[in-house]
Amino acid sequence: MNQFSIAIHGGAGTILKQDMTAELEAAYSKGLEDALSSGYSVLENGGTALDAVAAAVVSLEDCIMFNAGRGSVFTKNGTHEMDAAIMDGKTLDAGAVAGVSSVRNPVELALAVMQKSEHVLLSGEGALQFAKEQGLRIEDETYFFSQFRYDQWQLVKNEDKIALDHNIQVSASAKEKKFGTVGAVACDRFGNIAASTSTGGMTNKNYNRIGDSPIIGAGTYANNKTCAISCTGHGELFLKAVAAYDVSCLMEYKGMSLQEAMDFVTLDKLVKINGEGGMIGVDAKGNTALVFNSDGMYRAMQNSNGEKQIAIYR
Amino acid sequence: MNQFSIAIHGGAGTILKQDMTAELEAAYSKGLEDALSSGYSVLENGGTALDAVAAAVVSLEDCIMFNAGRGSVFTKNGTHEMDAAIMDGKTLDAGAVAGVSSVRNPVELALAVMQKSEHVLLSGEGALQFAKEQGLRIEDETYFFSQFRYDQWQLVKNEDKIALDHNIQVSASAKEKKFGTVGAVACDRFGNIAASTSTGGMTNKNYNRIGDSPIIGAGTYANNKTCAISCTGHGELFLKAVAAYDVSCLMEYKGMSLQEAMDFVTLDKLVKINGEGGMIGVDAKGNTALVFNSDGMYRAMQNSNGEKQIAIYR
Repeated sequence: MNQFSIAIHGGAGTILKQDMTAELEAAYSKGLEDALSSGYSVLENGGTALDAVAAAVVSLEDCIMFNAGRGSVFTKNGTHEMDAAIMDGKTLDAGAVAGVSSVRNPVELALAVMQKSEHVLLSGEGALQFAKEQGLRIEDETYFFSQFRYDQWQLVKNEDKIALDHNIQVSASAKEKKFGTVGAVACDRFGNIAASTSTGGMTNKNYNRIGDSPIIGAGTYANNKTCAISCTGHGELFLKAVAAYDVSCLMEYKGMSLQEAMDFVTLDKLVKINGEGGMIGVDAKGNTALVFNSDGMYRAMQNSNGEKQIAIYR
Repeated sequence: MNQFSIAIHGGAGTILKQDMTAELEAAYSKGLEDALSSGYSVLENGGTALDAVAAAVVSLEDCIMFNAGRGSVFTKNGTHEMDAAIMDGKTLDAGAVAGVSSVRNPVELALAVMQKSEHVLLSGEGALQFAKEQGLRIEDETYFFSQFRYDQWQLVKNEDKIALDHNIQVSASAKEKKFGTVGAVACDRFGNIAASTSTGGMTNKNYNRIGDSPIIGAGTYANNKTCAISCTGHGELFLKAVAAYDVSCLMEYKGMSLQEAMDFVTLDKLVKINGEGGMIGVDAKGNTALVFNSDGMYRAMQNSNGEKQIAIYR
């Protein structure tokens, strides 16, 4: 039996202990713990990596602390536009959605795109229509409302600024960046791996902007031959860097290990283009890595060797 | 002075001489010749690779023979939803739009996203709003109408089929595939390279489907260190393969030449996953390559060594 493992993230950025209250810290930790447990129990019960990452991301989407699903940030128009992707490293099948509203769990929609359509990427109204046809749970605006995100939006909306910040109200300083995204990667006992990412994007985003999260190769990628990767960070830079697939190519073509490839992309290549953020990864032997170049990243991992970690700061 | 060169494509697929009339062949050849000339003259006059690919793609978008801009296919709703991307290999700056309507030249919008916004990828109504703010040319539905595309759409729309076909009316057989996309890659006398791709997508497409064309790394990529690539083919497979960036990684990490890397991705890796189509590429020395695994690809190239080619069939 293969070692099985899971890693999750809830976003990276300027997350500093001095800005955090004990209550907030406990709430974030509980959100991570719940999602980790959701995903890990799938693996423990003999489930697949694909089901494990979907379960973990559903849990993170349902947790109002994270910028995905229920806790998604507000766009410039006061709406929620969510992006999500999922990829199966065994088959290289992938599904993704961009700019979708009202869908309770965008990761489930991404999975439906992968399994029930002949497409990889659907967007906007069309993606919502597909979600309804597939019988996925639809919620009204009140479900997605949170005072926290609303206040955050009010802070930036009239300045025509786009906030990368996860919880900018802690400090309105431009230096305070928190990239709100959630993601999971897993390796199951069969040695198959998978990755998933979900996000509400940038606070006050405009023009139906799409980041790296739903883009196969940029924010999300999985291939049994190499790795499964989920990114979080300044999406535009991760898009240009084709960050997730770059890790895979460094492993496949240069013979780097998962950790070496993720370190090189995150701590060297992305840093050189000011691509702030991080990523989590797993390979088909169940090795995990959690790397970020920002001050913090909400993250957790657990494996069948008994290792478990839940962390926020550097 | 560096050798300068340009390559363009107008889509790949089951393009067979026996299905073509002399008039159609002449019209396609003229469309390619005009676009090649538009792009090459930019290079000849000392312009940049970025301006050259934009000029060539504008010409292809304006030509009703190709599935991009004016000649875009119909969606299931009878509309036109266009995708485009452009990337500058010197700076790694990129811009793209997905599912945009009414914009006369989506490549110009992609360029505006790159140069005038802080984003890489805009979509749908938001992308159109940005286009209007930027003063780009907007056209009504009559501009995008063509009897040819309308008849093609009628053939498939009631069957709930999505046609990958460029001109399916030549034969309704499922084996007859023509992937309608246009693209250009260029290397200028300064040794800088760029790539651009534009498409109307699949006939009768639904759910605001997005293919590989506007996705940096999949359908479009440029990096002076390696290559500039524009793809055409079955978008979903090119997305999963992260095809354009794969060529770049094979060059950077495995030391392959442009031709070797494009051959490997197009004729081996994509064939293994039934990823029908092709791609054009250029490196920073001005070498060009035009590779496809389908029966034909509308294509052309010209360089400052006096080489010039316009071709359709294998």
